[in-house]
Amino acid sequence: MRSVSILATGSELLDGRVVDTNSNFVAKELSERGLKLKRVLVVDDDMSELVQGLRELSTVSDFIITSGGLGPTSDDLTRDMVAAFFGVGLAEHPDAVAHLDSFFAKRGRVLDSQNRKQALLPIGSTMVPNANGTAPGFAMTKEGSPTVVSLSGVPREFKPMFLETVLPLIEASRSNVEPIQRATMKTFGLPESTVGQLIEGLKLPNEIVVSYRAAFPEVHVVLKAPKSFDLAPYVVSVQDVLQRDTIFTEDPADTFLTSLQKLLLVKGLTVATAESCTGGMVSELLTRTPGSSAVFQGGVVAYSNDIKEQIVGVSHETLAKTGAVSAETVRELAKNVRERFKTSFGVAVSGVAGPDGGSEAKPVGTFFVGISSEGRSFEMKCLYVSERQNVRSYASYVALDLVRRAVLGLPVPEAYPIFR
Amino acid sequence: MRSVSILATGSELLDGRVVDTNSNFVAKELSERGLKLKRVLVVDDDMSELVQGLRELSTVSDFIITSGGLGPTSDDLTRDMVAAFFGVGLAEHPDAVAHLDSFFAKRGRVLDSQNRKQALLPIGSTMVPNANGTAPGFAMTKEGSPTVVSLSGVPREFKPMFLETVLPLIEASRSNVEPIQRATMKTFGLPESTVGQLIEGLKLPNEIVVSYRAAFPEVHVVLKAPKSFDLAPYVVSVQDVLQRDTIFTEDPADTFLTSLQKLLLVKGLTVATAESCTGGMVSELLTRTPGSSAVFQGGVVAYSNDIKEQIVGVSHETLAKTGAVSAETVRELAKNVRERFKTSFGVAVSGVAGPDGGSEAKPVGTFFVGISSEGRSFEMKCLYVSERQNVRSYASYVALDLVRRAVLGLPVPEAYPIFR
Repeated sequence: MRSVSILATGSELLDGRVVDTNSNFVAKELSERGLKLKRVLVVDDDMSELVQGLRELSTVSDFIITSGGLGPTSDDLTRDMVAAFFGVGLAEHPDAVAHLDSFFAKRGRVLDSQNRKQALLPIGSTMVPNANGTAPGFAMTKEGSPTVVSLSGVPREFKPMFLETVLPLIEASRSNVEPIQRATMKTFGLPESTVGQLIEGLKLPNEIVVSYRAAFPEVHVVLKAPKSFDLAPYVVSVQDVLQRDTIFTEDPADTFLTSLQKLLLVKGLTVATAESCTGGMVSELLTRTPGSSAVFQGGVVAYSNDIKEQIVGVSHETLAKTGAVSAETVRELAKNVRERFKTSFGVAVSGVAGPDGGSEAKPVGTFFVGISSEGRSFEMKCLYVSERQNVRSYASYVALDLVRRAVLGLPVPEAYPIFR
Repeated sequence: MRSVSILATGSELLDGRVVDTNSNFVAKELSERGLKLKRVLVVDDDMSELVQGLRELSTVSDFIITSGGLGPTSDDLTRDMVAAFFGVGLAEHPDAVAHLDSFFAKRGRVLDSQNRKQALLPIGSTMVPNANGTAPGFAMTKEGSPTVVSLSGVPREFKPMFLETVLPLIEASRSNVEPIQRATMKTFGLPESTVGQLIEGLKLPNEIVVSYRAAFPEVHVVLKAPKSFDLAPYVVSVQDVLQRDTIFTEDPADTFLTSLQKLLLVKGLTVATAESCTGGMVSELLTRTPGSSAVFQGGVVAYSNDIKEQIVGVSHETLAKTGAVSAETVRELAKNVRERFKTSFGVAVSGVAGPDGGSEAKPVGTFFVGISSEGRSFEMKCLYVSERQNVRSYASYVALDLVRRAVLGLPVPEAYPIFR
């Protein structure tokens, strides 16, 4: 594959309602494999614009990914565009009908004519399965033309379709490239700029390509080198310079949440949560992974002081004296929720998520995390200055990272983000 | 101005390091003024690619904004691209030299030859001031060609340059364009295909452009028409056909969450949550909006049956007889959490989020929502077949939508998604 381009379609991309995140996703995935996008073109849902856009991309691309326009409404024109580009008609594709039938049957519905329109694919195309939506995608090629693969524009449909079908197609067509080995380190706690600075300070040899991916609030580092190169000693150097503790997994398939869940499962430990400013985000994260009921019992979202006192038993004196955002309050929250929910760990978060409610002593972004367990209990004060939802996400990650550190017996960092 | 396009340049946009936020910014600004971007094209810093891209955009655009490539390094090619496009040379522009001199003088530095390169502008162009960086922009036009305005790619330089210089240019040239009016309806509960079918069935006149946007699990509808057109009766038809109840807001600035919060605030009502399969997501959504403490007291994430029984007081008999995923369990959860948290509403969710744990009677995607209030309490059984995190999101929305309906005294739909 020499050149891959994207044709993103849709009014919502051109009137500003939606940011085209699919293109950036593809750009990153290709970049990690040593490929770069040739072009991204965004055009409106207009038949002549669409076909002209596709023609222009075809003069510089071997492979064109289109996103959007596969739905059942009248402004969904991608099927017609690709058919016009290849000079073919549309026909009901049996695989697509089967997909739609099964999609609707699972939901106790019958496929209606409006939705059945989505099974009309360009004659000669192959269906691209869409596990997360009604609209199937398709791939089409012809001697002398680029391959065109049309995917749903909805990111949670587009991304798996790209990863499962398109990426293997692209990879298969570049077999003459030397095989690559890679080492992944997923970190939490260090700012991305610090991760970059620390690794650049190592002056790694030219055979190693380092890529960084900030998946807020995580930072992932991937080292790539030809298979014949001895990468292992450099992986150790990178681990050392990042301090091993900040690396929560080296398995590319694991996430922050799955790795924590595995850790708790292996050790037979359970968690309960008591949340104020995070409002349930910590427990929502803990229950995102299938099988979480083995390690998570439940929690209390103690948003008001009354609830902290009456439901979780924080003492009236503590709340009156130190306030809800304090080491004392999270200590009592964590201890009490652990005892009442009969778990190995209690984890509590209380803070000022903003945009209002800050003070000089406790500005917006201040939060406290408390960890309670039979062996070891501690509290930590943090300051993460950002907008409300980022403060909440960051605080939730800190809470879970401190559970991880408590389980592994690792030291508690002086601060989050960790600087050195 | 009939059509405005953007040419965004830079490797960092095509290898995924940077998301092109400038284009979305321009799209929004134009959209607010009733204009829509014609195209966005992203190309690499390569001279022939750049010129070809500019030529292609010029066939469909009267006005092209380029972003990036104005700096002092060897990959900054925008000046050369525009000069080549118009068939002119480059010359030092006195305004640009003066800008650079003053920029460096303010910082106690002298303009060096590397940076002075940035004063070379296409002959015949006008400088566009850049208050926040070294690189001046420029605007160029010629009879029979579109106007090309080249701005810095750095967002904090691009945005003021666009607002201060480009937007007035665009506005000045469109005195003959008729202004646009729009009507927004944000809905929850109907599948996108149903929304499309219902509205297409109305056979709206050609003056009205309908656009749809699926922001899972919401579906937004926007009707646009010239200002002189009498849109109001058609808005009523659309509202009728969608059943007004499914429309949670008609204010483009409001979200599902802010509109619910406003509603509760106005009526002085409060909510407490008891969640099983959603694991805290309902409370996390309720606390996302600043000021949520006025309407949300807190909740219990009752993930295990022990917690449902011991912390929220669901009777042992109910759990033994009907199971945790049942109307009886959510009824007790909602009632008890309302009483214990002393709120106007108690809302409870229990279900099978999957991928495991389903049965023939309660397949994956089955969930129950319970609403308890002094006046009216009810439960609803739903089936939403999807992957785990989507089931949880959908169930959380249903729970909050039922709170909205309870507050407004609206009927409870027979099912979610709503079909008719």
